[in-house]
Amino acid sequence: MSTLSERILGAAAGEYVDRKVDRAYAHDGTGVLALEAWKEMGRDRMGKETGYYIQFDHIAPANNGLTATLQHELRNFAKRSSMHFSDVGCGICHQLMAEGEVLPGEIAVGADSHTVMLGAFGAFATGVGATDMAAIWLTGETWFRVPESVGIHLTGNLTGAAEAKDLALAYVGKLGTDGATYQALEFIGEGVRHLSMDERFVLSNLSVEAGAKAGLFYADEVTLRYLKEHGLDTVSQEYESCSYCRELDFDLTDIVPLVSVPHRVDTVKPADAVAGVPLDQVFVGTCTNGRYSDLARFARLVKGKKVAVRTLVVPASAAILEKAIRTGVLADIVAAGCTIGTPGCGPCLGYHMGVLGEGEICLSTANRNFKNRMGVGAEIYLGSVATAAASALVGEIASPEVG
Amino acid sequence: MSTLSERILGAAAGEYVDRKVDRAYAHDGTGVLALEAWKEMGRDRMGKETGYYIQFDHIAPANNGLTATLQHELRNFAKRSSMHFSDVGCGICHQLMAEGEVLPGEIAVGADSHTVMLGAFGAFATGVGATDMAAIWLTGETWFRVPESVGIHLTGNLTGAAEAKDLALAYVGKLGTDGATYQALEFIGEGVRHLSMDERFVLSNLSVEAGAKAGLFYADEVTLRYLKEHGLDTVSQEYESCSYCRELDFDLTDIVPLVSVPHRVDTVKPADAVAGVPLDQVFVGTCTNGRYSDLARFARLVKGKKVAVRTLVVPASAAILEKAIRTGVLADIVAAGCTIGTPGCGPCLGYHMGVLGEGEICLSTANRNFKNRMGVGAEIYLGSVATAAASALVGEIASPEVG
Repeated sequence: MSTLSERILGAAAGEYVDRKVDRAYAHDGTGVLALEAWKEMGRDRMGKETGYYIQFDHIAPANNGLTATLQHELRNFAKRSSMHFSDVGCGICHQLMAEGEVLPGEIAVGADSHTVMLGAFGAFATGVGATDMAAIWLTGETWFRVPESVGIHLTGNLTGAAEAKDLALAYVGKLGTDGATYQALEFIGEGVRHLSMDERFVLSNLSVEAGAKAGLFYADEVTLRYLKEHGLDTVSQEYESCSYCRELDFDLTDIVPLVSVPHRVDTVKPADAVAGVPLDQVFVGTCTNGRYSDLARFARLVKGKKVAVRTLVVPASAAILEKAIRTGVLADIVAAGCTIGTPGCGPCLGYHMGVLGEGEICLSTANRNFKNRMGVGAEIYLGSVATAAASALVGEIASPEVG
Repeated sequence: MSTLSERILGAAAGEYVDRKVDRAYAHDGTGVLALEAWKEMGRDRMGKETGYYIQFDHIAPANNGLTATLQHELRNFAKRSSMHFSDVGCGICHQLMAEGEVLPGEIAVGADSHTVMLGAFGAFATGVGATDMAAIWLTGETWFRVPESVGIHLTGNLTGAAEAKDLALAYVGKLGTDGATYQALEFIGEGVRHLSMDERFVLSNLSVEAGAKAGLFYADEVTLRYLKEHGLDTVSQEYESCSYCRELDFDLTDIVPLVSVPHRVDTVKPADAVAGVPLDQVFVGTCTNGRYSDLARFARLVKGKKVAVRTLVVPASAAILEKAIRTGVLADIVAAGCTIGTPGCGPCLGYHMGVLGEGEICLSTANRNFKNRMGVGAEIYLGSVATAAASALVGEIASPEVG
């Protein structure tokens, strides 16, 4: 039988196929580049059946005049082309696509590597280059080599302070950063059913950190309920026994708080083992851990206390921000001495809103700790929301005690 | 009899005096420069009786690695020197000094031109250069030439949609940008008593836009009540008839919504006269109009509607943000499609968080519309909160209908 990727792409692993794309999106960073390529390609056609989106999230609001001028042109293009356009402050492209745009079985491409996050819906979702995106604007299609798949069998339940993020770091640590190059991860097994969509997003999100082309879940009752809440009705996908090129097993019960140490995502240690590393900044947010459930969890852990180090909390979207305001979550976060940023990618990219100084150390809930990413000469440790909260309260890396 | 400036400085207009400074503060921009000067001056003494403050507001959170590295050093200096330190996200220096730090009769200096805002307390408050600030760190003192004073007589009440900001633009328009160079403005008359502290802050704030050294109100019942709410007890200042170098009269009843057009603050027109100018951005915030009352007013005007242009709202301090969250004001602002920024100066300076592109036009509640300030080749119109709200809703400059 077929893997989910094979089923969606309609061909066997290893085959090359041209496929119509259901959703295609780009942000202010890659969108600008795609627009340049598009201008060279003729400007005169656009795939008619594809949903096109431009979201401003990477350097939004603009950090300088050049950025603003480029955004101005891209904004006008998006509006003129009748694309779905999300301006400064609406949020991160992947999150916006997850708020009721992508459906199980769809092919979604984004001009950003963490497009893989949308595999959590049972869609085939992957990142493409900016030039590819321009061609997709032109034709509504692109080519794929159908990937082989890695089966990741999950059993048990997360316990204590462990989060999906810790499980994600665990599998990236096990696979290594090139352990699943051009393969698709499939998260399967009875452990899946206990995972919320937000948790699945985290697991799909980090699949690219193991080199994977995609990271998929089969759409189930949890998926359908989530989509229903976003106004979409759809059907679930049945898992059929299929052939994996590799299989890994994780008992969620065994997962403990983990931290990726500088400068590789796959260099993973128990949070306990790096406790005490002094911090200059804690950053909670991004397409990995900037959702409402993350903010609510963080708020619960810092409520009534004060952070000991500068702590930036950046909601992944305006909808998340609004919910955090209405529920008191944001008030608790601000009262604890944290500050907030405009919904979007925040300092994850190192372009604005909390870039690190030379020698500074940050504990971040993001998905990448590459050298110099958040600031030249700085160090990034990656951890869960609970690890971020525990660390913010003492000003050094700390392992969270409870969940 | 003496003007309030003469009384506080203890000498007659025109005299040069050395005075102990009660409050001295610098932000991340000027603080970095002051620290460089301080290193050359010996580093070994600090005025013992002066309250010293460092507040990070100008490019906070940091926009790049260099900014972050400089802030890192200044942060360590502030902590090592036992200065009152307000990190990224705490808010704008002037606003933080207004939240229970400055008292009537005090001498307050800040390494920023809008320090004049604190004259609203009946303090002598003025901006100093970064090198002056370093010398003040060393000695706790600085020199002043006691300014002559301009009496600004206020009568009546603001009506309709008019705000203190419109009155401020009116007096700057009348005086011109160098109309009160090195003079102190004194806001007096029966019209003062109807003005809240927030309104007085606006009027004092813009005094430097007419070249003034300071802009003072006599501390009255309104002042005492405000300070009491911030935990401070003090006494009022009695106005005594004194000699002004120039006197102006404003009947508040006559004030209408005004807009400063590019690129001078003193080029003031009725909002009606520039209605229809298409906008790329609306910005609500700054030390001029980023207070809670401003946000609440803006929220009331946009509640239940949607803005038609990208609109940034940046609270002037964390306390203001927290109050706006708890009262539902922020929820209304976000629901109307506006986005928010980290408490601080926002894009007012043109360094981050909403810089304008070439040819873009912004309606801002700030105090300066100098050429290229918020982005090279961009245009800034200055107006009130109500003008900002009316304009945001239609995407072009609009005169507010009601108050």
